[in-house]
Amino acid sequence: MALVVQKYGGSSLVDAAAVLRVAERVAEAQRGGDRVVAVVSAMGKTTDDLIALAHRVSEEPDPRELDVLLSTGELQSCALVAMALRAHGRDAVSLNGAQAGIRTDTRYGNARIAVIEPERVTRELTRGRIVVVAGFQGSTEEMDVTTLGRGASDLSAVALAARLGADRCDVYTDVDGIYTADPNLVPEARRLSEIGFEEMLEMASHGAKMNPRSVEFAMVYNVPIRVASSLVDGPGTLIHQEANMQKEIGEIRDRVRGIATEADVAMIAVQGLEDRPGIAAHLFEPLADSDLSVDVIVQNAGADGFSNIGFTVARKDLGRARGVAETAARELGARGVVSNDRLAKVSIVGTGMQNEPGYASRVFRALADAGVNIEMVSTSEIRITCVVSEAQLGEAARALHAAFELDQQG
Amino acid sequence: MALVVQKYGGSSLVDAAAVLRVAERVAEAQRGGDRVVAVVSAMGKTTDDLIALAHRVSEEPDPRELDVLLSTGELQSCALVAMALRAHGRDAVSLNGAQAGIRTDTRYGNARIAVIEPERVTRELTRGRIVVVAGFQGSTEEMDVTTLGRGASDLSAVALAARLGADRCDVYTDVDGIYTADPNLVPEARRLSEIGFEEMLEMASHGAKMNPRSVEFAMVYNVPIRVASSLVDGPGTLIHQEANMQKEIGEIRDRVRGIATEADVAMIAVQGLEDRPGIAAHLFEPLADSDLSVDVIVQNAGADGFSNIGFTVARKDLGRARGVAETAARELGARGVVSNDRLAKVSIVGTGMQNEPGYASRVFRALADAGVNIEMVSTSEIRITCVVSEAQLGEAARALHAAFELDQQG
Repeated sequence: MALVVQKYGGSSLVDAAAVLRVAERVAEAQRGGDRVVAVVSAMGKTTDDLIALAHRVSEEPDPRELDVLLSTGELQSCALVAMALRAHGRDAVSLNGAQAGIRTDTRYGNARIAVIEPERVTRELTRGRIVVVAGFQGSTEEMDVTTLGRGASDLSAVALAARLGADRCDVYTDVDGIYTADPNLVPEARRLSEIGFEEMLEMASHGAKMNPRSVEFAMVYNVPIRVASSLVDGPGTLIHQEANMQKEIGEIRDRVRGIATEADVAMIAVQGLEDRPGIAAHLFEPLADSDLSVDVIVQNAGADGFSNIGFTVARKDLGRARGVAETAARELGARGVVSNDRLAKVSIVGTGMQNEPGYASRVFRALADAGVNIEMVSTSEIRITCVVSEAQLGEAARALHAAFELDQQG
Repeated sequence: MALVVQKYGGSSLVDAAAVLRVAERVAEAQRGGDRVVAVVSAMGKTTDDLIALAHRVSEEPDPRELDVLLSTGELQSCALVAMALRAHGRDAVSLNGAQAGIRTDTRYGNARIAVIEPERVTRELTRGRIVVVAGFQGSTEEMDVTTLGRGASDLSAVALAARLGADRCDVYTDVDGIYTADPNLVPEARRLSEIGFEEMLEMASHGAKMNPRSVEFAMVYNVPIRVASSLVDGPGTLIHQEANMQKEIGEIRDRVRGIATEADVAMIAVQGLEDRPGIAAHLFEPLADSDLSVDVIVQNAGADGFSNIGFTVARKDLGRARGVAETAARELGARGVVSNDRLAKVSIVGTGMQNEPGYASRVFRALADAGVNIEMVSTSEIRITCVVSEAQLGEAARALHAAFELDQQG
């Protein structure tokens, strides 16, 4: 008798009919004799609506109170799913984050799970009940409600699966798995039957839909995740430990697993900086203090003893980031600051490229042949990222998808 | 430094602008140096919307899950009011029913408060914070959410006021107090500056807007309640202990305090019942078992040794109640069952009429002069109720209002 944790996203719970379909699927999982914990997100656009409502009463809503407000979306959907299960004759019970034992710190809006006390969940499972848990939320020691960050219902599911020692963690969404690239950009994109945690992390941080902290958590606790569609039956994509994949890697035609893309990127470059220690710190500390998240960073020394530092930010942060950068640039005696707000990122991802030469040159060749100009380059052990003009993102993704023969793997 | 408990109903919280106005009023109460606990209902029609949603996933929603769902309305409004207060520079904190220490039994949908553990509320007040509490909800020992019944945010406020030893409990609503009659029926109706608990109970059970259990609770714990408008400033109506009013009663021109009205009433009469012990029990036990609430009950013996029993139910319950009554009537060998679904109740209410003769005859005279036929009569120590045709409810109310000179009291 297996223990299965399922997670259903908001796109699987858009209305009452969808709630009934989810209940059907949850009941199905139990029918085989398995014990089932279902973690649910808020219905459809509920969270966005609640955020908009909060902004109508406060320009900067208090984080603690915003969490109380946002947590209601998941409370509603878990009650409705449990209700629907009961209407179908299943013994089910909804639990909020506190009842599910998800204890967090007090970083409202982006709380970290401190510990999971699974006694209540275990007790309900032992009674033969399906347990429906409100995702995205936890509670502090004082029993104040916290939320775990956007998209963090995945995290609730993975963390519960880890703590309960679940046999499976199935994440249901509106797509049928993880793709080699965004099918909207690359029509040839193909569903992967499996992907490693680290590869998924790089994909997730660069566009594919899965909460990165959830993947990290799954990697640390080695919880295999199956991402599948709640609308159609299918095998989905299994995200699991690299080790399991080593033998298969030899069999696949290429070691690039997928193309990650991200639009709405802006770049700021500080030019003509003196080349001495502490320059980068002086530039990036005030950005961090202003809570500005910096992504790709590139520094290169000019022949004249001066260096340039470029970095990307989310487009919506460009105005603020440029202000901070200009102040720092003045203090550092830099020559100037330039920016570009119409950029995007395209990356190839795959553990197979570790320590293997030649991938970068193939990327540059493919992009050059497609007429795509590269603004910045950044690499990790399992990823090569190019910043390109947003207008050319689709061409760039298709060129790389073809160059690494991703349409032919499988 | 007084401790004030305020309560705001859904009609005072219809949208974001209304939330801001409520926050303004709460802040105002604190400005004088008082400590403030604000209990809030769900915004506008939220509860109705949630009930409708529940019925789209289940014909008979599970009571426990329905409570989880419904409780979210108050969570949202308490978070929003606290947010709005903080946006205005006030230190405020929202607490759900469990955090406010409202412990109940497990009668989901209509839970009774077992005890209030006010430690968290007291601690927040001591820190100088305004405490915004989600009304209508409590929690079981297992920390499962319960709701206290429709309109029971009043009860949350009164119970907290009693437990905290509050100096005042102000209930804000969309009307500026308790009236001598429903102004929609009786244009001459006048706001009462005060009313006794028992009188309010009779008014509340018979139409005026205040949750009866709250008034009962306030009476038992002697918590004076001020009912006032959240939209306009005004003294409202003070609901308090009769004792305080004794001296004033001598000064007022009449001892009838108000006319209570209630529409949507249906009547069932079982005719030709044998006159022997146990008949009434045999009739009313199955009604109670079917969860049908029976109101006015009249039994009279006929000259022929047979008796008739008539009783009223809410109109929506007529079909079910008639079915149960017909089965019982057959078992009892009664002659027949008749019903009327177009009735209403009109009552005069006032402690002053205790042990004073002549009130009933004045009621009957006034109704007769107005051409209103009386279907049933029922009395308590401080109330005389007539069941009349619904079409004549307004005439009946106006006639009684005039007969007892309620427009002229001061």
